[in-house]
Amino acid sequence: MTVNRPDLGLPPGSLVYVGDRKPTETSLSIIGYDPIGSWTRTADTVEELLSYRNDAGITWINVNGLDDLESISKLAQTYGLNSLSIEDILNTEHRPKVEEFEDHLFIIAKAITWNNEKGPEYEQISIILTNNTVITFQEHPGDCFDAIRKRIEVNAGRIRKMGSDYLAYALLDSLVDEYFKTLDKLGQKLEEFENQAVDETGRHFLKQLQNVKQQVLSLRRIIWPQRESISSLARLDTDLISEELQPFLKDLYDNILQCAETIESYRELIISIMEVNLSSVSNRMNEVMKVLTIISTIFIPLTFVVGVYGMNFKYMPELEHPLGYPITWGVMVLIALGMVAFFKRRHWL
Amino acid sequence: MTVNRPDLGLPPGSLVYVGDRKPTETSLSIIGYDPIGSWTRTADTVEELLSYRNDAGITWINVNGLDDLESISKLAQTYGLNSLSIEDILNTEHRPKVEEFEDHLFIIAKAITWNNEKGPEYEQISIILTNNTVITFQEHPGDCFDAIRKRIEVNAGRIRKMGSDYLAYALLDSLVDEYFKTLDKLGQKLEEFENQAVDETGRHFLKQLQNVKQQVLSLRRIIWPQRESISSLARLDTDLISEELQPFLKDLYDNILQCAETIESYRELIISIMEVNLSSVSNRMNEVMKVLTIISTIFIPLTFVVGVYGMNFKYMPELEHPLGYPITWGVMVLIALGMVAFFKRRHWL
Amino acid sequence: MTVNRPDLGLPPGSLVYVGDRKPTETSLSIIGYDPIGSWTRTADTVEELLSYRNDAGITWINVNGLDDLESISKLAQTYGLNSLSIEDILNTEHRPKVEEFEDHLFIIAKAITWNNEKGPEYEQISIILTNNTVITFQEHPGDCFDAIRKRIEVNAGRIRKMGSDYLAYALLDSLVDEYFKTLDKLGQKLEEFENQAVDETGRHFLKQLQNVKQQVLSLRRIIWPQRESISSLARLDTDLISEELQPFLKDLYDNILQCAETIESYRELIISIMEVNLSSVSNRMNEVMKVLTIISTIFIPLTFVVGVYGMNFKYMPELEHPLGYPITWGVMVLIALGMVAFFKRRHWL
Amino acid sequence: MTVNRPDLGLPPGSLVYVGDRKPTETSLSIIGYDPIGSWTRTADTVEELLSYRNDAGITWINVNGLDDLESISKLAQTYGLNSLSIEDILNTEHRPKVEEFEDHLFIIAKAITWNNEKGPEYEQISIILTNNTVITFQEHPGDCFDAIRKRIEVNAGRIRKMGSDYLAYALLDSLVDEYFKTLDKLGQKLEEFENQAVDETGRHFLKQLQNVKQQVLSLRRIIWPQRESISSLARLDTDLISEELQPFLKDLYDNILQCAETIESYRELIISIMEVNLSSVSNRMNEVMKVLTIISTIFIPLTFVVGVYGMNFKYMPELEHPLGYPITWGVMVLIALGMVAFFKRRHWL
Amino acid sequence: MTVNRPDLGLPPGSLVYVGDRKPTETSLSIIGYDPIGSWTRTADTVEELLSYRNDAGITWINVNGLDDLESISKLAQTYGLNSLSIEDILNTEHRPKVEEFEDHLFIIAKAITWNNEKGPEYEQISIILTNNTVITFQEHPGDCFDAIRKRIEVNAGRIRKMGSDYLAYALLDSLVDEYFKTLDKLGQKLEEFENQAVDETGRHFLKQLQNVKQQVLSLRRIIWPQRESISSLARLDTDLISEELQPFLKDLYDNILQCAETIESYRELIISIMEVNLSSVSNRMNEVMKVLTIISTIFIPLTFVVGVYGMNFKYMPELEHPLGYPITWGVMVLIALGMVAFFKRRHWL
Repeated sequence: MTVNRPDLGLPPGSLVYVGDRKPTETSLSIIGYDPIGSWTRTADTVEELLSYRNDAGITWINVNGLDDLESISKLAQTYGLNSLSIEDILNTEHRPKVEEFEDHLFIIAKAITWNNEKGPEYEQISIILTNNTVITFQEHPGDCFDAIRKRIEVNAGRIRKMGSDYLAYALLDSLVDEYFKTLDKLGQKLEEFENQAVDETGRHFLKQLQNVKQQVLSLRRIIWPQRESISSLARLDTDLISEELQPFLKDLYDNILQCAETIESYRELIISIMEVNLSSVSNRMNEVMKVLTIISTIFIPLTFVVGVYGMNFKYMPELEHPLGYPITWGVMVLIALGMVAFFKRRHWL
Repeated sequence: MTVNRPDLGLPPGSLVYVGDRKPTETSLSIIGYDPIGSWTRTADTVEELLSYRNDAGITWINVNGLDDLESISKLAQTYGLNSLSIEDILNTEHRPKVEEFEDHLFIIAKAITWNNEKGPEYEQISIILTNNTVITFQEHPGDCFDAIRKRIEVNAGRIRKMGSDYLAYALLDSLVDEYFKTLDKLGQKLEEFENQAVDETGRHFLKQLQNVKQQVLSLRRIIWPQRESISSLARLDTDLISEELQPFLKDLYDNILQCAETIESYRELIISIMEVNLSSVSNRMNEVMKVLTIISTIFIPLTFVVGVYGMNFKYMPELEHPLGYPITWGVMVLIALGMVAFFKRRHWL
Repeated sequence: MTVNRPDLGLPPGSLVYVGDRKPTETSLSIIGYDPIGSWTRTADTVEELLSYRNDAGITWINVNGLDDLESISKLAQTYGLNSLSIEDILNTEHRPKVEEFEDHLFIIAKAITWNNEKGPEYEQISIILTNNTVITFQEHPGDCFDAIRKRIEVNAGRIRKMGSDYLAYALLDSLVDEYFKTLDKLGQKLEEFENQAVDETGRHFLKQLQNVKQQVLSLRRIIWPQRESISSLARLDTDLISEELQPFLKDLYDNILQCAETIESYRELIISIMEVNLSSVSNRMNEVMKVLTIISTIFIPLTFVVGVYGMNFKYMPELEHPLGYPITWGVMVLIALGMVAFFKRRHWL
Repeated sequence: MTVNRPDLGLPPGSLVYVGDRKPTETSLSIIGYDPIGSWTRTADTVEELLSYRNDAGITWINVNGLDDLESISKLAQTYGLNSLSIEDILNTEHRPKVEEFEDHLFIIAKAITWNNEKGPEYEQISIILTNNTVITFQEHPGDCFDAIRKRIEVNAGRIRKMGSDYLAYALLDSLVDEYFKTLDKLGQKLEEFENQAVDETGRHFLKQLQNVKQQVLSLRRIIWPQRESISSLARLDTDLISEELQPFLKDLYDNILQCAETIESYRELIISIMEVNLSSVSNRMNEVMKVLTIISTIFIPLTFVVGVYGMNFKYMPELEHPLGYPITWGVMVLIALGMVAFFKRRHWL
Repeated sequence: MTVNRPDLGLPPGSLVYVGDRKPTETSLSIIGYDPIGSWTRTADTVEELLSYRNDAGITWINVNGLDDLESISKLAQTYGLNSLSIEDILNTEHRPKVEEFEDHLFIIAKAITWNNEKGPEYEQISIILTNNTVITFQEHPGDCFDAIRKRIEVNAGRIRKMGSDYLAYALLDSLVDEYFKTLDKLGQKLEEFENQAVDETGRHFLKQLQNVKQQVLSLRRIIWPQRESISSLARLDTDLISEELQPFLKDLYDNILQCAETIESYRELIISIMEVNLSSVSNRMNEVMKVLTIISTIFIPLTFVVGVYGMNFKYMPELEHPLGYPITWGVMVLIALGMVAFFKRRHWL
């Protein structure tokens, strides 16, 4: 929840890594493909990387880890990014957005992966889309784009037949697919909470539920701007995105919209669970009070009665009477029955 | 509440059935009609089906069950659908929408039926409207369109005299009519809850109410986008919908709007019921506490008094006094009356 | 709260009465007027009615009761209404609206009357405005338009000097005037609730308040769409409404807006009352608990002390001591005073 | 909260005074000024008043009290007001608005004054702005415009140098200045409530807070439409308002906007206070319960023990034992210490 | 929370200092720079100050302290400000805004600094941007712009190479950077509250949390209009802002948007903490009640039993029986075990 920004106070456009975690070491890789074939290479320097560019077909450059500020800056400048965009790539807390420039689109998106212990984890993905090249910057080497690499390799679907805009779309689409997996995990967790809501009155149930609520809200803070950014992508009037891609972007928007609506339904469910749980606690206290009241109100008068005949006055005629004891018992039984009748009438028993 | 999507990670446009339930076997039927007559046929293959097309009048093709991906795909492609639309037909969790294409409209709608045990059940209906043909895809063979088949057969209303756009409208209209039936059932349920809200303080009342609330919210998640989609249908500027249909679409929109407003009023009613119930529980606990307090505060001092004279001190002058016992009784009666007066003044009795 | 619609499943435009109550018998009346004079007639059949039409001046046809579907349909068709509009007239649950047609306006409005037992009652008023005729359909013969009939008769105000559009406006204006009366009654009721909110902790107070809240919400569901419909009426660009009428429509809109704002202030007041009441219940329980706690914690230790000296051990030196009894009393008084001091310090006394 | 409208049922444009209070007697006064000088006169009749008009410079006519319907009507008609506007002047419950007519602007505004006992009090101010004349209608003779009269008299600021539009602006500006004073009083009141929120658990605290909340909400119902009306005034495209006035109107809008935001912050503060108070009540009950529980659970077992040895069985070996009494004391001390340890572990002590 | 405005009642444009604190003494300083060099001077009078103007490069005049109304007014008028703008400079409670004039922009912004005891503190910064000059008015001499002075001095970043519009942007950017620091401090505080929410049930926890909530809300009231004002600055169509500055303003807007979203997430977190805390208090009371009930319901019946055999009736056969005492013990153990079994079944133990 804290806002840790070492760049504060520096001139705008200064290159500093901003994020909660230490940046991982930068590694560079490049994929080239066209309808006929594809190849993959890794490189140690930006110069080496750029020498592999595939001028005929589509080039996809992937940068893993944001540690090497110099290489990232050099690569970005090669493709005409201004210093503010480079600053955004390095600020891993940036909100999702799409920015249009003369010869490239600059997209910031978020990958969400589910960690069984900590809940959803976020990674910032920056995408630069030019006419025939896509550059992606990932925070950590990870596998969120492996399926797409595979599809390029085995020529699955239409990816090899289409332009760099389709590649950028496919990358965003695979991110949104991951969102659904995280939502599914959260949904399962909420179902467990829902089942326990009536019986669980411990002090930590709500604490844990609030934890999940915070996770849902943090997801929401990612998914809503992502939805906006995809919506603005679909409405962009730019040569970088071909007419052919429109139905795919619309479909992508439908998907992210479903994510957003699922998030909203989770929020409503959490409120429901909390209400049920609070009411359960209150009902239970009601029950406890009733038991206490029934036992107390039956026995307190009886205890008074036996107290009376435990007094040591010299002149107490009842004590001498041969039927004193059984009559006292009779009276006490009557009092007890009267109380029970009273509770019955109030529907407490 | 979970999001089960086997299509995640596949290339966009891949044909996979997405839904909570196993898809039912596909069956194909076709109805042809014009102002003069009508006929119905079933077919085993798409080819057979297509051979029955009624080029002169209106053709209505109905596909029941989404099991046979190949036939569905072949049929859809015949009518010019792209692979993303076909994917949407197979994704039974898709939200309602209307999409305009050059030569057809693609409509996703939801049928809602009431199940006495589980509450509202949803079925996705995909409708393709071309110039003289309507194709409908249903998840399960069911009777939600039987009334319309009848109207075509017996030439009731104006359906036989109008175009394929009127058929599509009539289908949507019959779906919205079903919504009202479900809303009616929910309304009856809520009325029961309303009547019990003051007396019912058990732990499961609210749980059940929350269940209904979740049903209302899930209905809302269907009906609101349905409302949007019908609204956009009414505003479409397309040759596929004749000018003549406008008042019908406006009427349809009025109906779905009434559904949406009814849903909102149900939400408000549920909140009311919960507030009454919570306050009832709290009032009841107040009552229980009062009884406990009255009984306790009357008898605890009396029990103390009788305890005093139960002590075994050798030198207790009161015990020897002949009027000790009756005077003690007098004092105790006075204490009890004082307490009762105190409660009276506080309006506890 | 239930949605009772016998028209579900019928073809659109089918003529069925839809409403919670049995429709009352239809009666027909007609008023003609011009700046010079006015007359009133009743008729048994539509034909007779139409024969009375006042071609020179303004004609106001009033239909009371929606029982006679045939006459209503015939009358409506004479004035060019389509079957969907006629269906709307017969559906007394329709929401307020204004629809513009080539030669007439079709207005659905609601009359609200206050029933001292059941709260606000609704009646649907359908108004058809043509060039020189106004047709009104009421659910029940009633007096909500009597003041206007009088004004026509005695030539009060400007009604006789203006066109049919002014008549339609005057009808809507008199409906909105009735709204204020109902709001006034509700306001008085809420004032009573407000005065009782602190003292009333019975279980039925909130139930009754919720009843009023439901009434306020149902009013709101009428008045908000009515506001919209009047607003759209004022913005209509049609020859049926003369330029001269604009300030009147704006004034009417100001009035319905005040209704809407009053409703909102009622909602806020109800929330206030509920909060005060809930807090009162909680404060009262706090008070009850304090009394219980004070009495218990003073006497429980004392009762223990007297219990000690009620024991029958053979060797208890205190019992033999001549000052044992008075010293015990002294100790008990000290304990009681200590407890009282403790409560004083905690501000419980 | 009630809606008292004697004009209901009358034809639109009927002249009836509408308000909660009896209208005060009408008095007429007129001020004329130009850059060189100024004069003030009172008049008994409208004719006399009109004879004083200052055709060269600016004329400001002030009408105090709405009792004399005839004079008001005559004066208003002289300046071209229609009957609906006159009706609005007499309806002191009208919401703030600005209406543009061909040769005049009609402005309804509200003066708010603080009454130490009843809170904010409202007075309706109607302003008519023509080319060189401003007419103001006040409900009661009062001093809300005295500062402006002074400024005209002593030629302070730019008021004498500018047109009638500046006078109208200055009047509205002085009304908004008064709003700040009322907001300041309310703010002080809320600060007191805030300081008491933790300690005050009496039943009337929330009742009084709700009172202030209702005052805040009623202010809000005045200030929000006033804000709208000033905003629309600033956007009007009319010859009656000179270009020169624009920055002043913008400044006025900034001020009323600050009022509106202050009101919103008050609402949030009230919610905060209520939450703190409710939680205080609940914490206090928790404390009370703890004391009761600690005292009860320590002494109830001890009382049982002493009760055991108060029994009169013939054969109870403990009673005969010479150490029976001291051993019993030891056991009781152990029980008490065990209980205290238990409470310590639960952090109740 | 109070609204202290000594200017109320004065003519608009009157020069009065408005603020909660005494204004500090005015001091004047001036910085001149161009791509080649920079210099700083202080001045005692406005005349001296103006004599230092740097006509070739960029001039930045800084006014610290709003005490010397005359100098401020003279300086402002030199740069063409109207009296309303000068009034705004002196009203330190003004909301952030951007106003466009023919030859200058007038910007009101807020500096936020964190005070460890009082939370966020606000200072109003007024900025006048002309073609080659920026004038800033600060309430107090402070260091919020020191980093920028340094950057000008050492020629860091691009500041010396760009125009006065970039200087104004850099000033706003450094203010927004400070916002993040304050948000970070608040975030840390909220984290502490979050950790204590389950265990802390004291009466002052919520009071302190509400304090922080009020701080968050007051921040929100600054940051939201600041966001609007920066958004309108980015959309201004004026020659005073060069095309080159657009990406910087967009970046600035992204930053302030992140502030606004962080504030919203803080609000949600505070609600979460409150819910957890309230539920903790309620759970704890539940626990306390259970202990009381268990102890009471076990011992109250036993105390009754021993009371019975403490009675002094002459004829009580049990007392004479040699096994009376042990049998009584047996019965009491059975009762206690029965109670424990009952609690076990209800899951209270």
